[in-house]
This record gives sequence, C-alpha cells and structure tokens, in this order.
Amino acid sequence: MRLENLLGTNLPLVQAPMAGVQNSALALAVCRAGGLGSLPCAMLSAEALHNELVVLSEQAEGPWNLNFFAHRNPPADDAREKQWRNALAPYYTELGLDIGAIQAGAGRRPFDPETLELIAPFRPPVVSFHFGLPEAAIIERIKAWGGKVLSTATTLAEGKWLQAHGADAVIAQGLEAGGHRGQFLSTDLSLQMGTFALLPQLVAALDIPVISAGGIADANGVAAAMALGAAGVQMGTVYLLCPEATTTELHRAALNSEAAQHTALTNVFSGGPARGIVNRAIRELGPLSELAPLFPLAGTAMAPLRAANEKTGSGEFSPLWSGQNNSGCKAISAFELTRELAAKIG
Amino acid sequence: MRLENLLGTNLPLVQAPMAGVQNSALALAVCRAGGLGSLPCAMLSAEALHNELVVLSEQAEGPWNLNFFAHRNPPADDAREKQWRNALAPYYTELGLDIGAIQAGAGRRPFDPETLELIAPFRPPVVSFHFGLPEAAIIERIKAWGGKVLSTATTLAEGKWLQAHGADAVIAQGLEAGGHRGQFLSTDLSLQMGTFALLPQLVAALDIPVISAGGIADANGVAAAMALGAAGVQMGTVYLLCPEATTTELHRAALNSEAAQHTALTNVFSGGPARGIVNRAIRELGPLSELAPLFPLAGTAMAPLRAANEKTGSGEFSPLWSGQNNSGCKAISAFELTRELAAKIG
Repeated sequence: MRLENLLGTNLPLVQAPMAGVQNSALALAVCRAGGLGSLPCAMLSAEALHNELVVLSEQAEGPWNLNFFAHRNPPADDAREKQWRNALAPYYTELGLDIGAIQAGAGRRPFDPETLELIAPFRPPVVSFHFGLPEAAIIERIKAWGGKVLSTATTLAEGKWLQAHGADAVIAQGLEAGGHRGQFLSTDLSLQMGTFALLPQLVAALDIPVISAGGIADANGVAAAMALGAAGVQMGTVYLLCPEATTTELHRAALNSEAAQHTALTNVFSGGPARGIVNRAIRELGPLSELAPLFPLAGTAMAPLRAANEKTGSGEFSPLWSGQNNSGCKAISAFELTRELAAKIG
Repeated sequence: MRLENLLGTNLPLVQAPMAGVQNSALALAVCRAGGLGSLPCAMLSAEALHNELVVLSEQAEGPWNLNFFAHRNPPADDAREKQWRNALAPYYTELGLDIGAIQAGAGRRPFDPETLELIAPFRPPVVSFHFGLPEAAIIERIKAWGGKVLSTATTLAEGKWLQAHGADAVIAQGLEAGGHRGQFLSTDLSLQMGTFALLPQLVAALDIPVISAGGIADANGVAAAMALGAAGVQMGTVYLLCPEATTTELHRAALNSEAAQHTALTNVFSGGPARGIVNRAIRELGPLSELAPLFPLAGTAMAPLRAANEKTGSGEFSPLWSGQNNSGCKAISAFELTRELAAKIG
C-alpha cells in the first residue's frame, strides 16, 4: 500500500518532526503542498501544545501528524550525574557559569494519559512515536477516533515489534538520518543499518507500509527509496533552511558551511545517540561519552553551556542536528520544496 | 557516463573482489554474464597470481578486473603486538595452542613494482585498488596498456583525491558494505556514510563515473542506486553463496542463519575496520579493539585461533565478512545471479 492511501494525503511524503527547529508553520506548509506535515510535541508544554493544536486543526489542508516520544525516563543516577558535571565543569569555568545553579530542565516527556486527553478532542489524523509505542490502551484510543499510528524502526526486530503492537506503518530510520535514533529494543549501535540495508529488509519482513527515512535529500532520493519498496518517504534535514522552520541562524550557518560534511552520532546533548554536525562539544566530550547520563538526562547540564555559547554567537555547544546528506537543504519555502521532492514520484 | 561505456562490459555491474572467498572462477562467471568479474590479489603469492592471470586472460569473456591493496604497511610496534597477544592469550590456552609459536603470516601486501611487472604482460583491462592508489608512475603504466583504474572512496574528500590522482571511476563504498572499509585519508569512522548519503554527494562532486557499493542485494537495489546517479553498481555479499565462490561451509552456514542479521565493523581480524557477521571474536575482543595492532598486523596472531576453531567446525574466530544487507544471497550460479541483478537496468 502506498502511503497516501493509508494517510489520506496527496503525496507519499512525510515531513519529519524535528523538536527544537520547527513548529506548526512548517507542518502547515508541507500539508498545503500535499505531504504530511508533522508537529514535534515532546518538548512542548501543555499550553503550547494546545495552542498548536488549535492552529493545526483550524488551518491545516489535509491530514497532519503529531509526534511524541514513547521512551521511559531512566531513574535518576546521582553518581552518573556527578561524573557528567565533573566532565562539564571546565566549560562552566571557561564561561564564568555556576555549575551549582543548574536548573532541572523541562526535558523531553514521554507520552502520557494527560497528553492523550489534551489531544483527543482535536482527533489528530496521524500520531507518530519515537522510541517505540505507548501502552495498548492509548493506541486503541487513537485508532478509535480514526487516527493512524506510526513509529520508527531501526532494526528488523523493532519493525516486527511495532507491527505486532498496532502500528499502521513503520518508519525505517537508516543510519544516515539526523537527530535522535529511534532505537528502543537495544542500545547496541552496531545493530543500526544504512537505509539501503534496512529499508528493503523491512519491506520484505512486514505486511504494513514502510516509510523510508535517512539520507534522502531530493527527488532522486525519493525515487530511489520507492524503487527499494518504500510506501513513502520521511525527510527532515532537507527542510532545515526553509523560512517556515525555526532553525537558529547558527544552525543555518553550520548547514551552509564545510562543517556540514561531517556529522556524527553523539550522546553528549541528551544522553541518547543522535546525529548532528560535529562541533566542539562533540569533539571534546564525545562523540559517544560513557560519562553522559542516560536519555534524556544528559541535556540538563548541557543546556546552560549551549545558552551561554549561543549568546556569544557560538554554536559549539548546540545540537546542530543534521543527517549525513544535507546536500538538498534549500532556503526556499517548504511548500515549494515539497513539490520539488515529489517531482519523480511515479 | 554509464559504466559499461567506460569499461567495455555489457552491464554496468561489477563483482566486488573478495579476498579469501573467491578466485577466478567467480570472476569468469560474472564476466560471462556481461558484468565485470574481479580477482582479489592482495593475498595471492606471485605464483598463484601468475596462474590466475593465465586463466583469466585465456578464458574471460569480456573485460576483467584485478584488485590490489594500496595501503602502506605500518612500522612494527612490539608493545602493541605484545598487548594484542596478551589479549588473545586466554584463547590460545583454551585451545591448547602455543602463543610463542606464532608464525609471521603472508598477510596482505601493498601493490608494488614487482607485481606491476608480473601483471603487465597480461594487460589487465581493469585494475582496482583499495585504500587509495599506488604512485603516479604505476597508474600511468596501467593506463599506457589501456587499463582502466578504479579505487574506493568512503568520503567526499577521498573521492576528490582519487579523481585528482588519476582514477577513471570511483567506487562509493557505503557503510553498509561488507569486508574492509577502503578509507585512506582518515581513520575516523564517524566520517563513514551510508550509501544514500555518500553516493549522490559523490556523483554531484565528481566528473568521473561513480560506482555504488554497499547494501545492494537485488535488482531493485541496482535500480535504486542508478536513480541516485550511480554509473554502475559493485556487489560482493550477494555472490557469497554462489557455487563459484570458495566461501567456507562455516561462512555459508552463518549467512544462512539468524546470526547474519547482525554485522558489525570490527578490527579484530586484521587491524583495519571491516564488516562481518558478529561472532565470539567480535563480541569478546571488539568490535573495535584499541589493543589490536594496525592493519594488517592484527591478523598474524588471530590466524592460529581461526585455524584451530575451524578444525573443530567453529567459525567463532573466523572473519565472516558480510554486508548489512545479505538478504539477496542465493545458492545459484553467479552467471544466473548476475543476470537477475541486471533485470531492472533501464
């Protein structure tokens, strides 16, 4: 089944939800072009989420997608937190910041029953999850209002698990993808596969549609993913320079620079492996630090370093999320870009 | 330019040279089907190479390829070798082997002037290299007899370097590929990209044809690579079960088992990062060991462990090379398989 048949969109294209660099404006533009626009919700307060839901339900042309995280927060680990703060202490000193003054951050919340009650009246047409799925009762509730449920698979085992637990389609996240790896059955990074390996194997193993993500940057990439059996394609990095995205100037400058050639999977910003452009934080603390607290706890002590550096015009401690193929990023409207990406769909 | 125009083959398909699991029989079958058959030469003695050259030059239908390594051997490092032997000592004890009796192995030799003199009379139509290129005089000599020169790029920088140093085409080796990474400008593994990211960026950056390698396992994969701009496709893993390959029974059994789902980049077999099916040696010593001597030196002390284990029917210390997508492996003739792989070439 092609994705547009499952979702009710005109195009089999999904704009990847990207927390921190977009709001409903990007989603609306993609919807208007016929794709599935997505709103990243994991870092939104209840009030902010409600406001965005009002915007989306009033203004979206066609279906739209809400994205949540389905991780379980790890127990606090004081010893690990202390190790991490010790590792970060020299940077606090360098910036004249007080490491004792770290505030618990809003962080990233897993989807919960309160959030379900908040979104239910808006009957979102699509709800996608990262890091697995919430409990069965929540999935059933979403399906009861006609919502379609998507989640991310980074291995064959995860794809089979998601299909067995009620996903309507699976997003095959190749190793090329920017941002957080959606892995949830294992933390072993050697299990993570490139799109050319993961996608066709998931297509062969599953009965539900598979959406290809990771490394796709233009209409040729979309065509190639479809040739490998994808029902549709999810793209994120390619939208980062669009005016509708809230990508910071620092992040945009990095994407436009030579530095964008080198991304790495790093856990230094959140504790979970995520792909971003290599900067000082990744070089000096990572890319994969054994000192970092588990996802999402490492982010709390990094946040002040990011904020202080950004104030001085430096993105060296910012998560500059990007996939390995950022060659398709263009500073044109997301509407126009979506139409370009769809140009070779048969 | 499509690859068949450069190489003079009927098909834009290259059989990847795979040292240790094939000889000229596999290459001849692929040539007969219209592809470019390849002979891995880095582990052959001068006599064995000469004999294979006689076979290829007499029997090949169409052009054929000789593959060599262009690495520089690292200086001996007694301290590192001692560390490595200490790490391996428990396995020697377990098997009742004498670690003091390790013989210097034949290892992998870089291409040298003597080898050039040996192959020159046969005027091989194509010569491909891994780990860069040999010196300019050698490249010129090959071109003087009409030979085409290929080499492997794992990054944009390597692709540009190879083009500037005389390569006629570049093999874009995505992270999905089995066997040794061809990287030669940097040892930083975070620079390695999946095929979806590496291939189109190399195609855009270079003027010479780009051959896609890594993760391609069937006719759909070939079509997808061509959609991304590849001039041709190189495949290795897919041929491992063919009767013309010399793949051991242990290796074939691993490829046919659940274990094949999990490959990793490991340096425990040679010292250089290479992708193989995860077994005990990789699990317990790696996947990436800081104790292993540099490529190819780690192999010497591993060889007796491999041999002793294989005698007891165990592949737990054997390099079970495989790409991340071994779903296309079939125990059919390489001739038939090559024709199947070409089925969707436009």
